[in-house]
This record gives sequence, C-alpha cells and structure tokens, in this order.
Amino acid sequence: MSDARDEIMEATYRALCTHGYADLTMQDIADETELSKAALHYHYDSKQELLESFLDFLYDSFTERVGDPPGETAPERLRALVEKVLSPPVEDDDERVAFKTAMLELKAQAPYDEGIRERLQRFDAFLHDEFQAVLADGIEAGTIRDEIDPEDAARFLVTTLDGAGTKQVAVGQDPDCTRRMLTAYIEGTLTVDGPDREPQEVGPE
Amino acid sequence: MSDARDEIMEATYRALCTHGYADLTMQDIADETELSKAALHYHYDSKQELLESFLDFLYDSFTERVGDPPGETAPERLRALVEKVLSPPVEDDDERVAFKTAMLELKAQAPYDEGIRERLQRFDAFLHDEFQAVLADGIEAGTIRDEIDPEDAARFLVTTLDGAGTKQVAVGQDPDCTRRMLTAYIEGTLTVDGPDREPQEVGPE
Repeated sequence: MSDARDEIMEATYRALCTHGYADLTMQDIADETELSKAALHYHYDSKQELLESFLDFLYDSFTERVGDPPGETAPERLRALVEKVLSPPVEDDDERVAFKTAMLELKAQAPYDEGIRERLQRFDAFLHDEFQAVLADGIEAGTIRDEIDPEDAARFLVTTLDGAGTKQVAVGQDPDCTRRMLTAYIEGTLTVDGPDREPQEVGPE
Repeated sequence: MSDARDEIMEATYRALCTHGYADLTMQDIADETELSKAALHYHYDSKQELLESFLDFLYDSFTERVGDPPGETAPERLRALVEKVLSPPVEDDDERVAFKTAMLELKAQAPYDEGIRERLQRFDAFLHDEFQAVLADGIEAGTIRDEIDPEDAARFLVTTLDGAGTKQVAVGQDPDCTRRMLTAYIEGTLTVDGPDREPQEVGPE
C-alpha cells in the first residue's frame, strides 16, 4: 500500500470516530489528511470503494493482531483470544466507543450492501475459525471436553463477543462484565478440569 | 392510547421497515397513515418524541409477549424465554430482518441520544431480570446448578441473544443456529440434570 493510501486509511478511522458512518463524506475524510478531496478521488473512485478498502485494511490489522493467540493450553489460548477481541489497541475510551458505534452503523448497512456484507463475513469467519481450531486442538489434547462441538462452541463465543460490542454501544455494558462471563464459560463449560461439579439432587420445582 | 396514536405507532413500524431509521422522516410515517404530516405533529412535536413513544409502545408489547414464560421447570422456562425472543410475531422473513436492521441503526444512535439509550436500557433490564428470576427460582428448586450466578448467567444469555440479532443483520446468521447454541448452554451448563459429563484425563497439549 502506498503512503498516501496508508494516510487515507488512518484519516478514515479518525473521520469515522468524529462523524460516524451514516453522515460521513469524502470531504470529512479529506479534512483529516493533507490531501484535497480531488486527490482522495484519485485513489478511490467513490466513498463506497474507499470504505470497502478501509474494511480490508481493518481486516489485515485485525487478523495480524488477533490470530494465533498465545498460551500453552487450549483454555489459555481461548482466553487470550477473547482478551484480544475485547481489548482493541486504542487507549482512549471515548474513541473506542465512537469507533465501535460507527462499526455498528456499518453493520446495519450490510443487508443493503453486498460489498460490506462480504467483508463483515470475512471477519466473522476468521474469528470463528480461530476459535474452532483452538477448540479442536484442545479436544485432541484432552484439555477441552470431548462432548463439545468445536464449530457450535466457536459460533457461541463469536456471537457473544458481538453481542458484548453491541451492548457496550447501546446500553453502556462494561467489557469487564463480558470478560468475566466468557472466562466462566470457557472454564466452566468448555474446559476439562473446570470447577468441581458436585452431583446434585433434582428436586420438584 | 387513542386510536390515532395506535395508528401512528403501526405506521412507524411499517415506515421503519421500508425506510430504515437513519433516513426516516415524519412525512414517511404520515404516508403510512390516513393522516397529514400536520396531524402527525399535532400528536408528536418532533420525530424524536414520536420515536421515543414508539420505543415505549414496543416495550409494552415486548414485555407482555415475553414476560412470565411458560414451563414447569426453570430449564423449560429458560428455553421458552429464548424462543420468544428469537421468534418475534412477524411471519415475513424480509420484514423481520428489515425491522431488526432499523433497530440496529437505532442502537448505534444510543451514545448520542439519552432518550433512546434509557429506553434500550429498559428492554435490556427487563429481559435480564426475567432470566435472572427464572434462574434464581431454578437454583432454589434444584433444577439449576447452584454454582451458577443468576445475575452473570442472565447477562450472558441477554448478551448472546443481542449478538445473535446483530449477526443475523450483519452476516445473515441463521436464528436456528442461535437457538441450538443457547439450548446447548441451558442444558449443558445451567441445568442440573444436563448431559453426562464423564471425568476425563487431562493430557499434555
């Protein structure tokens, strides 16, 4: 990618944080660069094309940051993967929520925009496949319960993480709460040596 | 609520399905009624006020439909509650997705609109409290594992259902998949007489 394109991608990120997705214009993005709007159009024919490139740019940095999570065992690697998704490399809380909000607006465009939908599906498939691979490895190694279906459990983790992002934007749900819930799910449901499960009497309700 | 207000609420629903949230105008809503735009303004000063009333209207119908789920035992009632959330009373698939999409746009407004955020928080709190109450009853009756924290597990269920809604809009995830995942979670993790959990050897990974 050329320097100008790099600069435009960074500017798009800042413009999305400031203006959101729905009202974003090429001028807003140009204003975040040293370039004119005409120069922006030299690199990208349309806002649509620019935003699709931006999603590709995000995908590359997401997969690089999140892929192949560290850890000795599958449960450790699952927790590391959850942690990476919950802790994007942005220090400022307002900026993080502003960007998540713009991404939520963008998700609401997916039913009407095949280019956006395909790119969101790539993110979804990547994260799902990462979880699934770690779960399958863990079952083989005996650290993940062998009655777990890696595909379904991966889908569950990805869906809950998505919900946590939406809840953070919509009702201000604390990511720490999500972290605690998912840790409990990984340790209590997925992991072989999870917390003790005493047999209990089933009583009438 | 007067007949005119009822008619306006139904019209708002149809207009949201057709136009989405971001571009919705008072005229779009008036066009779905026998009323003029001026008559609409007689009932609601602004689009903001109308949309807040619409969320209150949705809340009333949601709580009536979803509250106090049927079933003999807590696990049955949890499944019934999940089912009600996943199966809104709309037969047409396109209409359902169109409305969910408009609601997702609306969630993305919450950080900038306290009236919307407060109303979304009411939905969230209602559903959370329903799950929590059923879980607490189930622990007392011995059908839900007593190491479960009802508040955390309720938060988990609500978050996953939210994620399922977002995934349906953004990447076309099938609600049947969500239903299967949540049934497995309720039966395998929350329920006392869940599937057998054979002790397993922990091997090196």
